[in-house]
Order: sequence, then C-alpha cells, then structure tokens
Amino acid sequence: TVPDYASTSKELAPSRASQIMKYGFPGFDNLRTYEDFVLSYDRKTRTAHWVCEHLTPDRPDESVHKYFQSRNEDYKGSGFDRGHLAAAGNHRRSQSSVDQTFLLTNMSPQVGKGFNRDKWNCLEKYCRGRAKKALNTYILTGPLYLPRKELDGSLYVKYQVIGANHVAVPTHFFKVLLLEIAPGNFEIEYYMLPNQPIDDSVELTSFLCVPELIERSAGFLIFADLPKNQVKKINRKGTGFW
Amino acid sequence: TVPDYASTSKELAPSRASQIMKYGFPGFDNLRTYEDFVLSYDRKTRTAHWVCEHLTPDRPDESVHKYFQSRNEDYKGSGFDRGHLAAAGNHRRSQSSVDQTFLLTNMSPQVGKGFNRDKWNCLEKYCRGRAKKALNTYILTGPLYLPRKELDGSLYVKYQVIGANHVAVPTHFFKVLLLEIAPGNFEIEYYMLPNQPIDDSVELTSFLCVPELIERSAGFLIFADLPKNQVKKINRKGTGFW
Ligand SMILES: [Mg+2]
Ligand SMILES: [Mg+2]
Repeated sequence: TVPDYASTSKELAPSRASQIMKYGFPGFDNLRTYEDFVLSYDRKTRTAHWVCEHLTPDRPDESVHKYFQSRNEDYKGSGFDRGHLAAAGNHRRSQSSVDQTFLLTNMSPQVGKGFNRDKWNCLEKYCRGRAKKALNTYILTGPLYLPRKELDGSLYVKYQVIGANHVAVPTHFFKVLLLEIAPGNFEIEYYMLPNQPIDDSVELTSFLCVPELIERSAGFLIFADLPKNQVKKINRKGTGFW
Repeated sequence: TVPDYASTSKELAPSRASQIMKYGFPGFDNLRTYEDFVLSYDRKTRTAHWVCEHLTPDRPDESVHKYFQSRNEDYKGSGFDRGHLAAAGNHRRSQSSVDQTFLLTNMSPQVGKGFNRDKWNCLEKYCRGRAKKALNTYILTGPLYLPRKELDGSLYVKYQVIGANHVAVPTHFFKVLLLEIAPGNFEIEYYMLPNQPIDDSVELTSFLCVPELIERSAGFLIFADLPKNQVKKINRKGTGFW
C-alpha cells in the first residue's frame, strides 16, 4: 500500500502536492511545494505558518529573499535547536526528500533537551508508528504564539527572537495527525505542546486538545475539506457521529 | 487629473486592483480587493498585514471566517481606538468606498489620544495634501511588531491582544507614501511610528526611516516593481542616483 515515489519525475510534482494537500490548504501565504511536503512560510517570523506531510509507508532556502531568510548563524549560540517541522524520518524515499526537510524554512527554534530531543521526538515517532498501519497519513505541523495573562490583567503575546534575522521562537507547537485507517474511515488527533522542557513521565495524550484552540491561534482551518462523517475517532475517542 | 471612478462598473474592479498594486504586491496572504483599496489580512493577528491605496485626487467583514474576525466588541473597553489603515478620508469617491474603509479588516487597535487622533492623523492629512498635487499617489500602510531587548539581554516581541478574538495591538505602524510627481518622476517616503501617545511638538520627519527597517520586520518588500531610476527623492531628500 506504499506507492513508490522514488522514481517520480519532476512533471508529477504538482500532483504530489495535491495528494499531500487533499483535505485542504490552511492558507496560501508563501507556499513551497517540496518533493514530499508542502509548507507555508511566514516571512515575518522567519519560520513556517504550517507544514503538511503525507505518509504512505541544513542549508538556507535560497528561494526566500535574503531579508526574510533564517540562517544557521541565527540559531548558533541561541540555546535553541533547529527543530524540524516536517520530520526528516518521514521522508526517506529519496535523498533529496530528506535533504529538503533540512531547509531552514522547515526549521523552528525548539528547546532541545526535554522537547525537540524528547517529548516532541516521541510525538514524531508515534505518528510514524501509526502511519505504518494506515492507508494514508497526513500530518500538519506548525508553530503557535499564544497569549498569556500578565499581572496587569491584560493578555500579551510574547516570544523571543534570535539572531540577526530575528527568527521567532514559538511559544508552542501543534501537530495534527490524520489517519485513513480504511477507505472512508478516518481518525484525527490534535496535539499542542509548549516549547519547553517536558518531563518524560507526562503522557502524549495530555497534549491532545480541541481543534478550535489550534485553529483560532494559528489563524487557519485544518483539513477543512475532510468529510466530517468519515471521521470515526477524534483525539483517540470514538465519535458517535460528527 | 483625478479620474472619476464613481461610475466604475463592477466589471472594472480587477483593473482597479491592478492600478492600485501597480508597483508590486508585498504578498498574497488573504487578499481582499475592495473597490478602492487592496488589503492582505493576517488571520493570526486579526488585523491586516498591509493595506495599499491609490489616490488620484464600522462593520465586521463577513468574508472572513468567524474564527478569524475581529469584532467591535473586541475593541470595546480595551482603551484602544479602531484605527483605520486605509484612511476613510482618502476614499470619498462613493459611499461604498468610504464604507469599505470601515470594515474591521481595515482596522487596527491604535492608541487614541496622541496617536490615532493626533500624530497618525497628521500623517494621513499630510499624505492627502501631497496627493492633491501629484499625478498618482500610492500609500502602503500596516502594523509592525518590533522586538525589544529585555533585562536578560535577549530580544522579545511582545504585544497585547484584546477582546475574545485576541486582536493584536501592533507596537508600531508604517506608512509608505509613493508620489508620481510627473511622468517617470517619483518621490517616496517611509514612515514608522510607535503606537504610543506622541507629543504634538515632534515633527513627522523624525519618523522617516530606511525601507529595510520596515521590510525586514513586516516580512515583505515594498513597491518592489517600482523602477528605481525614476525615484528622484527618498525621505524628502534628492537621490543623485538610485
Ligand atoms: Mg526534531
Ligand atoms: Mg484614524
């Protein structure tokens, strides 16, 4: 059930993008359709709005104007990892597919220990494990900048920016896992994790959240074209109906 | 020299948009081509990325999904004005043109006293005054969210969000005034003002800044298609060449 795209010619690229984006584009801002994932780049924060992957089984991106690029030097000494949005491990069908996940458009500053190398990595592995047993798997990933109440009672969005290019450090990341278990039988899981060290003992399930929480703060709708009546489980729980 | 668009039929709208955007689109995210101005809406911050106007002489925008709308109630009691990006006074050619500047997509939370009602208003009036004597005037306006260094030595972007829809309060606003004085003779002025009360005694010229400062933080290029050799003045100073 895993089609072989290794031999896909360049002419087929647009149809690969439409496969990946089958259930709707969250938005169209600065789209990049790479060989094996589709990304919308936020030139203001120097990191993506979202990245979408479709599974069936470090270099600057020169296509972005230099004003808006993030570069390795921005991350260097910042204390943050260059965290992948589309995970490298999901795109092993060709060397160039793997390479493209290392483009800096696909990176976000992530806390290393306790996040990128730990809990976030667990989530990526969990997604990959589920993908092995599904007909089709779609993964949408992105950064979030959530407000917090301060002592004056007002809400503020606050995030660090790093390097000469002021790359934004997201406060949170989301990942939405859409699994087609059997034809017309979908399961969907919405995760939101803080960009902080997370103790190993905390279960992944504690980061499940309602879609609206992600959608409102991200500023786009997720898999809006997915037929709702074919979704049999949301956040690991059966839906009597939808 | 002021063409009469009052009788422009709906069929002409696309060509009006291309007139307005003659020197390049800063971006294509959630574009709205209104009768007399063009706007790119940022669904994450609930206020525009930018608004572009071309001069020759308050209701929610239902075209935006409700998750991403800002509403009058968001502004109510916040202490901020609903500040126009495209100024109402620039679009008096028809009632519907004026009305469209009151759409909430065209609003940003602005400090009232000392800013929206004062220095920012001065800048709008100044632009209008200059437009009266130019063949064509293009005005690009938008919000900015600039980082500041905190006590820990790191840079942070911090801005308030208001109301149930978390409408972002920009830290600064920019306005770029492009005047075609005579055919092939352009003048351009780049302004950046803090969203704060500004004393009347401060001259508008003290807010002139280099284009790169706006472009880097806004995340887009401004009037990128303008032939540089036709620009005779930048920030009120002659350019020997460009
Ligand atoms: Mg990683
Ligand atoms: Mg105003």
